Amino acid sequence: MRKLQIAVIGYNKDRCTEEARLMAYDVGCEIAKAGAILICGGLGGVMESACKGAKDNNGFTVGIIPQEDFSFANEFCDLVICTGIGFARDFITANSADGIISVGGGVGTLIEMAVGYMKKKVIVAIEGSGGVSDRYAGKYLDERRRVPILVVKDAHSAVQIFSCKVNHASS
Amino acid sequence: MRKLQIAVIGYNKDRCTEEARLMAYDVGCEIAKAGAILICGGLGGVMESACKGAKDNNGFTVGIIPQEDFSFANEFCDLVICTGIGFARDFITANSADGIISVGGGVGTLIEMAVGYMKKKVIVAIEGSGGVSDRYAGKYLDERRRVPILVVKDAHSAVQIFSCKVNHASS
Amino acid sequence: MRKLQIAVIGYNKDRCTEEARLMAYDVGCEIAKAGAILICGGLGGVMESACKGAKDNNGFTVGIIPQEDFSFANEFCDLVICTGIGFARDFITANSADGIISVGGGVGTLIEMAVGYMKKKVIVAIEGSGGVSDRYAGKYLDERRRVPILVVKDAHSAVQIFSCKVNHASS
Amino acid sequence: MRKLQIAVIGYNKDRCTEEARLMAYDVGCEIAKAGAILICGGLGGVMESACKGAKDNNGFTVGIIPQEDFSFANEFCDLVICTGIGFARDFITANSADGIISVGGGVGTLIEMAVGYMKKKVIVAIEGSGGVSDRYAGKYLDERRRVPILVVKDAHSAVQIFSCKVNHASS
Repeated sequence: MRKLQIAVIGYNKDRCTEEARLMAYDVGCEIAKAGAILICGGLGGVMESACKGAKDNNGFTVGIIPQEDFSFANEFCDLVICTGIGFARDFITANSADGIISVGGGVGTLIEMAVGYMKKKVIVAIEGSGGVSDRYAGKYLDERRRVPILVVKDAHSAVQIFSCKVNHASS
Repeated sequence: MRKLQIAVIGYNKDRCTEEARLMAYDVGCEIAKAGAILICGGLGGVMESACKGAKDNNGFTVGIIPQEDFSFANEFCDLVICTGIGFARDFITANSADGIISVGGGVGTLIEMAVGYMKKKVIVAIEGSGGVSDRYAGKYLDERRRVPILVVKDAHSAVQIFSCKVNHASS
Repeated sequence: MRKLQIAVIGYNKDRCTEEARLMAYDVGCEIAKAGAILICGGLGGVMESACKGAKDNNGFTVGIIPQEDFSFANEFCDLVICTGIGFARDFITANSADGIISVGGGVGTLIEMAVGYMKKKVIVAIEGSGGVSDRYAGKYLDERRRVPILVVKDAHSAVQIFSCKVNHASS
Repeated sequence: MRKLQIAVIGYNKDRCTEEARLMAYDVGCEIAKAGAILICGGLGGVMESACKGAKDNNGFTVGIIPQEDFSFANEFCDLVICTGIGFARDFITANSADGIISVGGGVGTLIEMAVGYMKKKVIVAIEGSGGVSDRYAGKYLDERRRVPILVVKDAHSAVQIFSCKVNHASS
């Protein structure tokens, strides 16, 4: 029986605010406490903070990295998927998620959101986390209005949504 | 000496309006007249109309399709790249463009825009073409403000921008 | 501290012999007993038997599947990576391995071996398992003679090689 | 009406012999004379020589490169597909071929052959060109015996085979 796989997406190392880092850490903690597996892009910023939060709570963390070599992953990944396909790996992160939590983020995060949206995944943005998470909170990514980007006040609420919703959303 | 490779992105078959189809046809015509190569995702809707426009003006057209088999490409492609990597091929379409012209479009178009934006490609939206082209016209896709989505009134103006701008934008 | 990630490759469902299935099951058992993570292509045949072996010994199993949807993975995968990039996912399976164990197999297995060989991974074929595993046992895949395909008599010996060799091979 | 797309695969820059370079040049010439499009991996060695041969005969050449940026392609490519997916682009080169001509080559060439073999493409090796082309000449890549690697004495014979065979092989 496969566990829930929750993707955390958001700011990379270059743009990550201290606030987003703390929020991402909390998201990692909550995913671990809920007994779900945390998947992410495996690099720095939000990805690293979320992995650290999960590890501090005995969670299991997966880094799906653009590069071919393990060494690019952050140190808090229990498992590293070395895609070697560059940033097209954003598709794999989103496809492999039962649900997605977004913390801030730039255009890379937008791509991951968009892939999740195409597949009608449950996507939750943390309120006030900045970047594309705030920009698209409560909105649809295109005219098709497939799924709204949900908004929550904090990490705990984000993970709670998944416990309720995900089983219906993921095929 | 490689010719300019201009990508046309936009509505797929399911959502394409008659207006967007005509605009895309014009874009194809202008690309061919300018002596550039038209690249696109190789399927229906905007992609097909643009290819037809280019073929009607003796242009050369390239379809970069998600599938493994040639048969999925529209009939106006001179060359078909069968990626077999699904919609992650959006990365390849955008990476392979010296510049991008957008006509309407949904979330798939947004992904192609976003990849182009990451790489600071010149991206031009046709005004009034609907979808994400109108939504992002004149805007930046994230806080980094790398390149604005330019807006033009018609296909002719779109292709003119490339003659001037592209050589500086593409590495 | 990341655990060892050992890839099991070999016959898919269509061509898998009963003998290869048993060998793959044993390989899965031994990987789990060694405390390593089993990664594989996530589908049937050798992949499924190896996963079952690992699960019967409280191991952790990862299926890296060609498709976009979880439902294609065999039921013994603890984690499913839905690549959506078709059989190009063979690159990801091999890139993500600290070492590779091969049980029988056809041309898909040969591709995974070849990717591992390019990256100088330790690759071990189980003797008598048939297919490309026997064909390349003890040989090099090209003139560069990067790494030989090692041969072992059974699953236990295969996993033992990794405990000794892998730390030096993987970067 | 799409033209025939013939892929040329073989030694990269590092290992290319002078003899293979000349053979590849001839292959490029013959593809152009036959009015087909030459596709290849877009880099050095056999790929570059084949492109040069085609260009010297007014052919059209396509380089499908691993990188994201045009600058990695050899100078004889009329069109560059910047996949950005690393060597997993081998799948795209082979998938996009109506037929494949192999000149020498190492493990990367073997992967392209293998992908073509999976899809039952017509694959022709030039006799005496070395590497995996000679190693697999006249053989099958696995027990399934899908298609044999055909052998021919020279470039002219290779291209002749395609004129006869390809229409039946490619779907």
